[in-house]
Amino acid sequence: MAHLQGKSVPTRFGIVVFPGFQALDAFGPLDALNSLAYYFPLDLSIIAATMDPVSTRPPNAPPQGNFSESIVPTHTFETAPPLDVLIVPGGRGTKDINVVQGVIDFVAKVYPSLKYLITVCTGSGIAARAGVLDGRRATTNKKAWAETTALRTEVKWVAHARWVVDGNIWTSSGVSAGLDVIFAFMEDVFGKEAADNVANGLEYERHTDSTWDPYAKIYNLKDSDA
Amino acid sequence: MAHLQGKSVPTRFGIVVFPGFQALDAFGPLDALNSLAYYFPLDLSIIAATMDPVSTRPPNAPPQGNFSESIVPTHTFETAPPLDVLIVPGGRGTKDINVVQGVIDFVAKVYPSLKYLITVCTGSGIAARAGVLDGRRATTNKKAWAETTALRTEVKWVAHARWVVDGNIWTSSGVSAGLDVIFAFMEDVFGKEAADNVANGLEYERHTDSTWDPYAKIYNLKDSDA
Repeated sequence: MAHLQGKSVPTRFGIVVFPGFQALDAFGPLDALNSLAYYFPLDLSIIAATMDPVSTRPPNAPPQGNFSESIVPTHTFETAPPLDVLIVPGGRGTKDINVVQGVIDFVAKVYPSLKYLITVCTGSGIAARAGVLDGRRATTNKKAWAETTALRTEVKWVAHARWVVDGNIWTSSGVSAGLDVIFAFMEDVFGKEAADNVANGLEYERHTDSTWDPYAKIYNLKDSDA
Repeated sequence: MAHLQGKSVPTRFGIVVFPGFQALDAFGPLDALNSLAYYFPLDLSIIAATMDPVSTRPPNAPPQGNFSESIVPTHTFETAPPLDVLIVPGGRGTKDINVVQGVIDFVAKVYPSLKYLITVCTGSGIAARAGVLDGRRATTNKKAWAETTALRTEVKWVAHARWVVDGNIWTSSGVSAGLDVIFAFMEDVFGKEAADNVANGLEYERHTDSTWDPYAKIYNLKDSDA
């Protein structure tokens, strides 16, 4: 923990990755935090099933071409250090239970020791299956709405939301919404000046209204308890 | 080359990476293309000085904490295959000539064989030093404007621009502008339907006006020939 104006702030960040994770789900929030790390002494652990590089290419990728990137883990689910904040991206890999069962188990195991859990896109489907969203309000990717919300009916799924905060869990809508949720989190926890400085450095025009969501309209979605 | 309504489209993409590259400069465009690759048979080569993983952490990183990510190259500057499109990200590493001289040399070598060159952020400083922007209009990161435009005065640097197209070279403003330039490129080359489908899938609200640029105003910038 570091201190900001007498308040302690989280410094130990982690992200889980798995084959078929969505690159921007991960690297939107991570790059905002890369910049924040120039103001605060932050550490990042990149956590996966094994120490082998993890590809954005899902097991069920189309046979045509090969357009993907691989990231290098720093820890496994067994060796991950204590964390203040865990980020869970989504992506096509979440559709394969064999790919994400280990991630689900890891989220269930470490959630009680976290200060914050942040999910992006269908990453909320992982958190939901870990049981940590039961009874909470949460959102997810809008194109994958039906299949993701069906994973756990105990969750109060909110359709019209760029992101949702319930307790210490921040869930965002699809892919690029990860940028908006991380900046909202950054403003709340590290202060508006830090969030504005980082957003201007990334030349990113934030959506600051958590209910902004043209994508829910595209797919004509309704809240799960509506 | 694949074909779209009788028109050939580029399929052989490459990106150069170097220590201290900016993660979102690379992964914004790459993730949009990851999605486009579900519609077209695209290939990606990730090209670096060696086959070792390449970190976003620059050589001159602050000693505090360690918040960075590493990507795995698929080719070196010597083994890179023929490319249709090359993407050049920026980042703090571009400030160190020892880090980027090999990248500059690679861009100078392959540019004549490319169909398109796309730079993000201070990646245009690499292209400028490779000499390929001489006499052309181009833009770059607005916070790093002074130091980047000073690298090559033969370039017609445009201050107020989200992105600039001159011939077959597309240059963008800082970091998140890489998303807007890749979608503008995608619309121009692969068609509006593809660009809209991918942007909606990423839940990304594009800036479609290339002159939109509140960041030039923040830093009170003027065009280099103004």
